[in-house]
Amino acid sequence: MRVAILGASGYTGGELIRILLFHPKAEVCYVTSRRYAGVPVHTVHPNLRRVTDLVFREPDLSRCGECDVVFLALPHGASMDIVPQLLDMGVKAIDLSADYRLKDPNQYRAHYGLDHKHPWLAEEAVYGLPELHREEIRGARLVACPGCMATSVILALAPIVKGLDVAPIVSDVKMGSSGAGSKPSLSSHHPERAGVVRAYKLIGHRHTAEIEQELSRVAGRGVRVFMSAHAVDMVRGTLSTNYVFPRDDVEEKDVWRMFRFFYQGEPFIRVYRARRGVYRLADPKIVVGSNFCDISFELAPDRLIILSAIDNLVKGAAGQAVQDWNIMLGIDERTGLEFPGLHPI
Amino acid sequence: MRVAILGASGYTGGELIRILLFHPKAEVCYVTSRRYAGVPVHTVHPNLRRVTDLVFREPDLSRCGECDVVFLALPHGASMDIVPQLLDMGVKAIDLSADYRLKDPNQYRAHYGLDHKHPWLAEEAVYGLPELHREEIRGARLVACPGCMATSVILALAPIVKGLDVAPIVSDVKMGSSGAGSKPSLSSHHPERAGVVRAYKLIGHRHTAEIEQELSRVAGRGVRVFMSAHAVDMVRGTLSTNYVFPRDDVEEKDVWRMFRFFYQGEPFIRVYRARRGVYRLADPKIVVGSNFCDISFELAPDRLIILSAIDNLVKGAAGQAVQDWNIMLGIDERTGLEFPGLHPI
Amino acid sequence: MRVAILGASGYTGGELIRILLFHPKAEVCYVTSRRYAGVPVHTVHPNLRRVTDLVFREPDLSRCGECDVVFLALPHGASMDIVPQLLDMGVKAIDLSADYRLKDPNQYRAHYGLDHKHPWLAEEAVYGLPELHREEIRGARLVACPGCMATSVILALAPIVKGLDVAPIVSDVKMGSSGAGSKPSLSSHHPERAGVVRAYKLIGHRHTAEIEQELSRVAGRGVRVFMSAHAVDMVRGTLSTNYVFPRDDVEEKDVWRMFRFFYQGEPFIRVYRARRGVYRLADPKIVVGSNFCDISFELAPDRLIILSAIDNLVKGAAGQAVQDWNIMLGIDERTGLEFPGLHPI
Amino acid sequence: MRVAILGASGYTGGELIRILLFHPKAEVCYVTSRRYAGVPVHTVHPNLRRVTDLVFREPDLSRCGECDVVFLALPHGASMDIVPQLLDMGVKAIDLSADYRLKDPNQYRAHYGLDHKHPWLAEEAVYGLPELHREEIRGARLVACPGCMATSVILALAPIVKGLDVAPIVSDVKMGSSGAGSKPSLSSHHPERAGVVRAYKLIGHRHTAEIEQELSRVAGRGVRVFMSAHAVDMVRGTLSTNYVFPRDDVEEKDVWRMFRFFYQGEPFIRVYRARRGVYRLADPKIVVGSNFCDISFELAPDRLIILSAIDNLVKGAAGQAVQDWNIMLGIDERTGLEFPGLHPI
Repeated sequence: MRVAILGASGYTGGELIRILLFHPKAEVCYVTSRRYAGVPVHTVHPNLRRVTDLVFREPDLSRCGECDVVFLALPHGASMDIVPQLLDMGVKAIDLSADYRLKDPNQYRAHYGLDHKHPWLAEEAVYGLPELHREEIRGARLVACPGCMATSVILALAPIVKGLDVAPIVSDVKMGSSGAGSKPSLSSHHPERAGVVRAYKLIGHRHTAEIEQELSRVAGRGVRVFMSAHAVDMVRGTLSTNYVFPRDDVEEKDVWRMFRFFYQGEPFIRVYRARRGVYRLADPKIVVGSNFCDISFELAPDRLIILSAIDNLVKGAAGQAVQDWNIMLGIDERTGLEFPGLHPI
Repeated sequence: MRVAILGASGYTGGELIRILLFHPKAEVCYVTSRRYAGVPVHTVHPNLRRVTDLVFREPDLSRCGECDVVFLALPHGASMDIVPQLLDMGVKAIDLSADYRLKDPNQYRAHYGLDHKHPWLAEEAVYGLPELHREEIRGARLVACPGCMATSVILALAPIVKGLDVAPIVSDVKMGSSGAGSKPSLSSHHPERAGVVRAYKLIGHRHTAEIEQELSRVAGRGVRVFMSAHAVDMVRGTLSTNYVFPRDDVEEKDVWRMFRFFYQGEPFIRVYRARRGVYRLADPKIVVGSNFCDISFELAPDRLIILSAIDNLVKGAAGQAVQDWNIMLGIDERTGLEFPGLHPI
Repeated sequence: MRVAILGASGYTGGELIRILLFHPKAEVCYVTSRRYAGVPVHTVHPNLRRVTDLVFREPDLSRCGECDVVFLALPHGASMDIVPQLLDMGVKAIDLSADYRLKDPNQYRAHYGLDHKHPWLAEEAVYGLPELHREEIRGARLVACPGCMATSVILALAPIVKGLDVAPIVSDVKMGSSGAGSKPSLSSHHPERAGVVRAYKLIGHRHTAEIEQELSRVAGRGVRVFMSAHAVDMVRGTLSTNYVFPRDDVEEKDVWRMFRFFYQGEPFIRVYRARRGVYRLADPKIVVGSNFCDISFELAPDRLIILSAIDNLVKGAAGQAVQDWNIMLGIDERTGLEFPGLHPI
Repeated sequence: MRVAILGASGYTGGELIRILLFHPKAEVCYVTSRRYAGVPVHTVHPNLRRVTDLVFREPDLSRCGECDVVFLALPHGASMDIVPQLLDMGVKAIDLSADYRLKDPNQYRAHYGLDHKHPWLAEEAVYGLPELHREEIRGARLVACPGCMATSVILALAPIVKGLDVAPIVSDVKMGSSGAGSKPSLSSHHPERAGVVRAYKLIGHRHTAEIEQELSRVAGRGVRVFMSAHAVDMVRGTLSTNYVFPRDDVEEKDVWRMFRFFYQGEPFIRVYRARRGVYRLADPKIVVGSNFCDISFELAPDRLIILSAIDNLVKGAAGQAVQDWNIMLGIDERTGLEFPGLHPI
């Protein structure tokens, strides 16, 4: 299959290239970057030196027409108009921006400050979380990949809100620096960023919209999530600590059952609480480089705390996009995503 | 004043030595360590090389009798029997362990697994948080210094629970590695500890007992706090993110007023939310080495989020103990604690 | 092929398991650990949860007889007596310890403090650096894998000492914490290890012996290397900065030619100096997780500085061992070692 | 004394403010920054919140005339023309840029690409390394503070080149990220900067010029130093590993004697090699925040390796500048510089 990646010089783009270069069904034929047009991919993604001779190209939609699928790793707003053109050319689109995640254009406007020009397409787009939408992904023309924090929080909570009535949920998220993208700023300057625990979006984080959309759908009723984000000193990784207050009594075996039932057969979900070893609970350190989402929980009489750890660039972005594509292709979802992560790292 | 420090080879002990060596009223005459008896202090606390010739001694209570005040930086359980002996010798005791923090011996037993042998002394002991107990500290024989997480959480919440009726509070704490002490283990081994976001006490953390004790006292009613701790990749620092759900409407100016009123004139409390710069909200990176507790908040219609950042070894331990001592001495509380922290670090 | 790994609970053992589980020719049937016998592999190597059901076993040499090849990831001294028994059983041995690296038993005694009991086997053993010994590895019964620092330094210098007469070489090595193994100690305790630049073996590092052995062999004359090691704040990675003082004039194109000639067709050697991008010179950050050795150099009139970066656990240990095995099997050397590393990390 | 700081928004400027605010002889009355004019100092240097109400001002030389001393923390080139104006106004100048360090204008041009407009002033300027120029500093109008790497390397080597004839010296320097200044760039972007060992100036580093100037002066003959710099993952700190090849035999007690003699009575030089503890040799981690320069050495038959660790922003910049000023004032050199550093950090 011929594959193009638009916006390939960012971190998500780099991960897409890395994964797809080793994917048996993919022929990466076109990677674009306005900024780095003409520059070899390995200049920007140095791990790919000697691995590929690809060169970034100026974006040119007509060239996408020769491809079977296009991955869009563009900032929100930029995907909006490109996606319909791709679909018109009969090319499937896997969009990693936020442009097609929200079904409600009012929500999109409220969170992203833009009017959505193609609301019917946003309606058609499938939210690319395989654990929730596998069947729809299979036949989709357009998949809108979830945000990294949204992936972590939704996967932690979906089985629970489906099974339990709960009060508003507190999701406290800890993020690595790659989550803020590849563009330098004073707040990402190493002397200012190393060693922080920097709360940066305590209220009104954009990902809240997609989280509440998806969890409400699963629950069949409105679910509220209060999410707050903190930057911590790691490069990759997202951990969400989710505080759930069930309205009714619940026992530990019920919680296990909900998770087991919901995630039965899922190739990338690991739910566990270990009794030995250093890593007893989900920790992003363990999933770096892999497509796993690790989930752990603790239950107290009055609350249920659920941890969910992913690599924000893999299960939180590029890996999940490839998982979606595998589903669209009808092949083993793990194709190209077998890498188990490194320990220690 | 002649000062002894028991358990001086740990991180808290090292900070006590460092601060007291430069304290104009202190003559550090006796520092003990079973493990390092006979070893120069700078072997264990290498920043003090050429700063002091002190040598660790075997603990010998009779030598404490020659001192005016003894700081106990011992593990819980170890202080319990030493404190009454010190008081009997007419020596004031500033205990940094958990032994004399809890008024209710049942709580002590429940959280520390020990029967308290001197409950009447626990009753007499003053909880050494100056912002709550300044007047009692002034005349105290025995001060029980708060835990680091407790300091962070109580200082974030006291003005609020005093002014507002609130639902149970969620406190999500992020900790540096020095908080786990100076003893190596597999979980503190650098390859296993670097880069983690490791939830380690999601439920039932011991500091919850003192937090609820103090906040309930301030509020004049039972206050519940659900505290969870996470180890992140920094050496020093504690950040608590406190999620408060007021039962009544509250406006931002009310919250400002509560903090201002409660912390008026406090030398080490900084409440702020900046509009410029990289550090707009409380962040432990900014307080490393200082005795400040930085507090910030964000208010949404349905919740109030309060951040509170300290250096766990200073305001969370040794610095606060010296602040308590300054109060007992009737001198400027800032004596010996003027260091403003380093930036960048 | 049936594969056993002895000493599989250490970091090198973990990497061997990880790589071999995905190796198309390997069936990992036996992994041993005295300490963790009976414990699932993923308890110690948490990235392998759900990837393997393997359980550590008590070491039992008779079980090795059922295998085709045994990887020994044991401390030096421990491999010495096991290797001949394996060979007697007709099993090939790939030893990652130092026991069979040195041809001269006096050197072994001088550096490791032990008498070598099987010097004739040390003589037979092939030093497992494919770039120097590919042909001998092909037919070997026993391969002695190089140390991580030795790999970095020898690969930096072999083409140069072959082509140029040089004065004694200064090799300044920077190491990640995983290089010190999986056993915790005070010096690996996170608060003591984070942020250091800790010189720890300025003179007489053991790897010097194998470096000088191999470089002298390549050069056809005695080559002296002064190697010093420093621990820096990273988990994986080895960078050596090698200061070479040629006794004759040399031009940049000569140096390029030496490297090109020596490393022509090598699948894991990348020699470069980039003119753009952030990573212009070899840096361990870029090779984490991969089997690459990146080499860069700068030439001044009076000196030649050569950088060489590897992942100490991959090209410096487990990856190189698998590369050796691939050569022994006569298959593509890259088999199982295709992972290109992650960026950013 | 009335003090002004020009270029006060950078990291060196921030450290000058921090130190001078607590200096008993200093009244910091004027701090300038073009970029942040009108902004409170604590917005940029957040550790100084509540510590000072100072606001950055537009630079205006006439206001410097009201001061007794001006610290210039400007980029090289910018100090060049300001310094003579200050001196003309009768104001003493302590310049932290490179503009007045080099006596030879050809060297200045060669390394900084500029013609020096006031070579006679460069001649007059005193190189502000107290350990070498204390007497001249005492009476100086203009002090040119050394670069951070130069400080580390010169202090490591001065006693040795004075006492021994040596071959060209290799100085391998490891630097924290604050050494590259406060301006963000792609190479300082946290995901790209964390975990690196990035060689960035293997040949021709500018500090070489001042190092060779000063060491040659001390030695009374030309001394050559080959310095190379590497960025490692820490914020503050400079370690230089200096490889010295004495032309004659030397014994360990001779080396000790050279250091003792040269540094007798020096308040900020600690020469040691410890037999116990984790920090046996000089390590920048130990001197963070302090004005100490720690020096350690190891001697082998054919080489002498000398380590030298400083905080690049303190002894390598602002602290040393204040030490110089103390000397000019005729007061205890340690004034304002007593802080011993933090452990652990």
